[in-house]
Amino acid sequence: MNETFLQACRGERTGYTPVWMMRQAGRYLPEYQKVRGNISFLELCKRPELCVEVTLQPLRRFAMDAAILFSDILIPIEAMGAELFFHEGKGPIIASPCRDAETVGRLRIAPPEQDLPFVQETIRLLRRELDVPLIGFAGAPFTCATYLIEGGSSRFFYETKKMMFSQPRLFHHLMDKISETTILALRAQAAAGAQALQLFDTWAGILAPCDFEIFVLPYVQRVLRKLDDLDLPLIYFANNGATLLDLSARTGADVLGSDWRVDIGDAIAKAGRMAVQGNLDPLALLLPAEELKERIGRLLNGARDACGHIFNLGHGIHQLTPPDQVCLAVDFVHELSTR
Amino acid sequence: MNETFLQACRGERTGYTPVWMMRQAGRYLPEYQKVRGNISFLELCKRPELCVEVTLQPLRRFAMDAAILFSDILIPIEAMGAELFFHEGKGPIIASPCRDAETVGRLRIAPPEQDLPFVQETIRLLRRELDVPLIGFAGAPFTCATYLIEGGSSRFFYETKKMMFSQPRLFHHLMDKISETTILALRAQAAAGAQALQLFDTWAGILAPCDFEIFVLPYVQRVLRKLDDLDLPLIYFANNGATLLDLSARTGADVLGSDWRVDIGDAIAKAGRMAVQGNLDPLALLLPAEELKERIGRLLNGARDACGHIFNLGHGIHQLTPPDQVCLAVDFVHELSTR
Repeated sequence: MNETFLQACRGERTGYTPVWMMRQAGRYLPEYQKVRGNISFLELCKRPELCVEVTLQPLRRFAMDAAILFSDILIPIEAMGAELFFHEGKGPIIASPCRDAETVGRLRIAPPEQDLPFVQETIRLLRRELDVPLIGFAGAPFTCATYLIEGGSSRFFYETKKMMFSQPRLFHHLMDKISETTILALRAQAAAGAQALQLFDTWAGILAPCDFEIFVLPYVQRVLRKLDDLDLPLIYFANNGATLLDLSARTGADVLGSDWRVDIGDAIAKAGRMAVQGNLDPLALLLPAEELKERIGRLLNGARDACGHIFNLGHGIHQLTPPDQVCLAVDFVHELSTR
Repeated sequence: MNETFLQACRGERTGYTPVWMMRQAGRYLPEYQKVRGNISFLELCKRPELCVEVTLQPLRRFAMDAAILFSDILIPIEAMGAELFFHEGKGPIIASPCRDAETVGRLRIAPPEQDLPFVQETIRLLRRELDVPLIGFAGAPFTCATYLIEGGSSRFFYETKKMMFSQPRLFHHLMDKISETTILALRAQAAAGAQALQLFDTWAGILAPCDFEIFVLPYVQRVLRKLDDLDLPLIYFANNGATLLDLSARTGADVLGSDWRVDIGDAIAKAGRMAVQGNLDPLALLLPAEELKERIGRLLNGARDACGHIFNLGHGIHQLTPPDQVCLAVDFVHELSTR
């Protein structure tokens, strides 16, 4: 087992900088497209043998130092009783948005062994195949809340903020239920064999820091505190969260993820004794080889004083990225960081 | 003439904090909807007497300290020869995206007196009516470039970054042409009577600081330098630009706009001797009156050491905002800041 990724998460010295990429299993790979050809995204998420296959696909091509469970951040939310669809091009749709006490009240705190057995099965199967660590994950409570409230993705998150600002008690009640579900889902992933856990706060970046502090931070702290006894690296990634890094450093996570808008040196300064994960612009993978190498070199150099650095993109791989460029990037990271 | 806004822009001491709001003339006002009932958005932009009417509408309701020309950031881009449509719900569409040397080569540097006479006419008419300063504006070159390259709005700006990263010379050539057009358009607005000029860099926030510095900053600097002799306050607003504030402070602008993700104290620290403009979350206008007042109080307090503060939202007013809440907010700003 190559433990470089786990060592970097714990801030231990490593022989080189480990690398994985958000959405490394995904639509930019023709072999993934082939699997998806016959099956919807949501069905795929529920078929362990296919999840194993697509999780492994990038590892066959690239020297990634970690695998990430193939699933979706909203899988536990569906198990709460929300009707979930994936619309090609529009992303996830929640059929009946939760905007009042009644719909919030109806949400269940889902027992994952019963409602999400396929996730645990995928993890068990993957652990037999993998020689790099397996990352489990969930959506962070706020991000899940936005989907439940908006009924899908949104541009301005009007309904979410309307509830936060005009019905704060209802909003807190919803966050409470999602947090408990998230704790159970992530503990079940750990029990099945996940070796690190990442919370994706995809939409945290729509909030002013003062609102993040009141409406989001306490729930991330609760979720991570309730995972603390597992003794696994915990990663928190608030997308577009440049101004939330100070507060994100107080979540209790071991690793602070950062998107590409942030200078990696600034992220490290805020991270204190946490490791950092990131943060190449995913579309910088379109740079010609020499310039890509130079940019990766600058990023590695900027991160040289981190208490652990896991190289990653600042967001998921874009679907039009040529796989050969991903291969180049992974190899450059290894070549340039070998000590 | 109430000059409070202009004084704050220049960093002069004012009796209270001036306030205006981005998109203060817009869809949240029923009287605006009424004007739009019979006419498309683009037609409206080209009818001076109607532009005057909708520019004045918010001033009849609220004690705003500035008016902003009713127009669109892409109006000068259409005059470059791009075919522009506005699709309800989807925003602007450019019929033939500019992605190669030929389409970029065909773009004209548009003489505004000939191609945009309606903008100058609107400004002349408005100056007769207004007793607060009139702000003219344009899209910043990068933001205009994204629309030209993507053919409209975008989520990941794949085509824009692809051109930046794989055809940098073509990208710079496009930025060069847009910049020259922007200079002419803004000089024409000033000649007609605009008393301050704002550059809206709506999409600058998709860039890593290292790319902003190379591909964007030199063009904003050029545009603002070529307006310097006008001796009008120049405002630069990079939306979602928390990590670009250091660089934005080097644009040559007099006023640094900031979105709501940034703590106003941090913006002031980066602004140095520039005035700051912002930055209430537009959806915080949904707060109950007492909490809205408290939040505005905190923002004003946070900005007390600024070299000039113009109160604004961190983005345009959302169309579902109740006008009465806007009225409350404007009055709270005046009440709480009167010295």
